[in-house]
Amino acid sequence: MRLRNIPGAEEALREYPTFVDNPAGMKGRWKERFGNDHPIHIEIGCGKGRFINTLAERHPDINFIAIELKAEVVLRAAQRTEKREIPNLAFVQYNAALLPDLFGAEEVSRIYLNFSDPWPKTRHAKRRLTYASFLNTYKQVLKKNGEIHLKTDNEKLFEFSLNQFSNERFQLRNITFDLHQSALAEENVMTEYEERFSSRGQRIYRTEAIFRS
Amino acid sequence: MRLRNIPGAEEALREYPTFVDNPAGMKGRWKERFGNDHPIHIEIGCGKGRFINTLAERHPDINFIAIELKAEVVLRAAQRTEKREIPNLAFVQYNAALLPDLFGAEEVSRIYLNFSDPWPKTRHAKRRLTYASFLNTYKQVLKKNGEIHLKTDNEKLFEFSLNQFSNERFQLRNITFDLHQSALAEENVMTEYEERFSSRGQRIYRTEAIFRS
Ligand SMILES: C[S@@+](CC[C@H](N)C(=O)[O-])C[C@H]1O[C@@H](n2cnc3c(N)ncnc32)[C@H](O)[C@@H]1O
Ligand SMILES: C[S@@+](CC[C@H](N)C(=O)[O-])C[C@H]1O[C@@H](n2cnc3c(N)ncnc32)[C@H](O)[C@@H]1O
Repeated sequence: MRLRNIPGAEEALREYPTFVDNPAGMKGRWKERFGNDHPIHIEIGCGKGRFINTLAERHPDINFIAIELKAEVVLRAAQRTEKREIPNLAFVQYNAALLPDLFGAEEVSRIYLNFSDPWPKTRHAKRRLTYASFLNTYKQVLKKNGEIHLKTDNEKLFEFSLNQFSNERFQLRNITFDLHQSALAEENVMTEYEERFSSRGQRIYRTEAIFRS
Repeated sequence: MRLRNIPGAEEALREYPTFVDNPAGMKGRWKERFGNDHPIHIEIGCGKGRFINTLAERHPDINFIAIELKAEVVLRAAQRTEKREIPNLAFVQYNAALLPDLFGAEEVSRIYLNFSDPWPKTRHAKRRLTYASFLNTYKQVLKKNGEIHLKTDNEKLFEFSLNQFSNERFQLRNITFDLHQSALAEENVMTEYEERFSSRGQRIYRTEAIFRS
C-alpha cells in the first residue's frame, strides 16, 4: 500500500469509535464488546477497508473485525466510518502472525484474505499469509467448520495457497479461476485492489477453505 | 480421437498378448494374471497408449492396466507393444463408468486421467470423468490413500475437477497450473494429446487427488 506515512496515525486512530486500542485485552471476550454472540468474521490485511465496511453494512447479524499491520493504512479504513459508531465493526492494528493474542480457540467463524502480498520469491514464501505456519495460526482461533475465503489476482499465490490449504487438511470449496465471470460474481464485494486489477483486465482467483479439523 | 474406424478392430486385438479379452473375468484376481501382487495403476482413456507404455517400461514393479472405450483406439495402443508379451502391462476395452465390473474393492492403487474429454457444455457435465458419480465409482476400487493423477490442457475442466475432488473429500496435492515449468516437469511422461497441446504453447494443468476415505 503506497500511502504516505501519516504522522501521528496511532493517536489519530483513537478518535474513531470503531478502532480498538488494546485488542489483545479482548481475547476470548469480543462478544462483550459487540454486546451479542453473533458469529465473528475477520479480514486480515484490510487495506483501506472498503470490503469490510460494505460487509458490515450488508450483514448486521455478523460481527466484523478488520486487522491491518500498518497504522496509517488502518487509519484510512477507519476514516471511512466518519467517527460513527458501527455496532458490528471493529478495526485493529496488529500483525496477523500473532492472531492467537487476539482471539481464543474457536472465537472466529470466518477469515477473509483479500489480495494478500504475493511475496513472489521462493525465499520469501514464509511471509505469504497462506504459508503453513500462518494456516496453523488460523486453526488456533477458527471454529470447527470455520472458513477462510481467499481472493487474489496473483496466479502463483493462488496455486501456492491451494496446495498449502490442502496439505494442512482444509477442504477446498467453490474454487474459481475467474470470479467476475462466475456464478459468485453477483454477491461479490470488490476490494480496492480488486477494482484496480480487474479494471486492467486481470482475472480474479477465489477459493474457500473449510477447517474440518 | 479422430481415427478411422478400423474394421475388425475387436478381432485384431485378440492377436495382442497384452490385450485382455474378458476383463470382467479378472475382477479381484488381477494378481493371478500378473503373477505377483505388485500395486496396480490404471489409466482411463489411454488413447494411443504412449503414456502407459512408457510407464510400464520405467516401472517394472508396478502393474499397469490401460482402459479405453474405443476398440480401434485401444488397438493402436496395443500395436505399440508389437505382439510382445509385456509382463506388467494389460489393455482393456471397457467403459470406465463400469469400473467396478473390472476391479474389486481396494484392488487399484492409482488412477491416471490424462486429457479426458472436457465436455464443455454444462448439460454434459455428467459425462466428465471427474464428475462426482465417476469419483464415487473410482472410490469403489481404490485402496485407502490411493491416488488419482490428472493432467489436462483445459482450464475449465481443471477448475471443475478440483472442486469435484474436494467436494468428494479427496485431498489435493501437487496442484500445478503449468506442469512443464514446474518441478514435476523432469519426471513427466507426455501423452499424445499433451505433446500436441504443449507444442502449440498451451499450458498443462495437473493435480493429484488422494482418497482419504
Ligand atoms: C496488497 S494489500 C491488499 C489490501 C486490501 N485487502 C485490498 O484488497 O485492497 C495487503 C495488506 O495486507 C497488510 N498486511 C500484510 N501483512 C500483514 C500481517 N501480517 N498482518 C496484518 N496485515 C498485514 C498490508 O499492510 C496491506 O495493507
Ligand atoms: C481426449 S482423448 C485423450 C487420450 C490420451 N489420454 C492422451 O492424453 O493422449 C480421451 C480418450 O478417453 C477415451 N474415453 C472417453 N470416455 C471413456 C470412458 N468412459 N471409458 C474409457 N475411455 C474413455 C476416449 O475414447 C479417448 O480415447
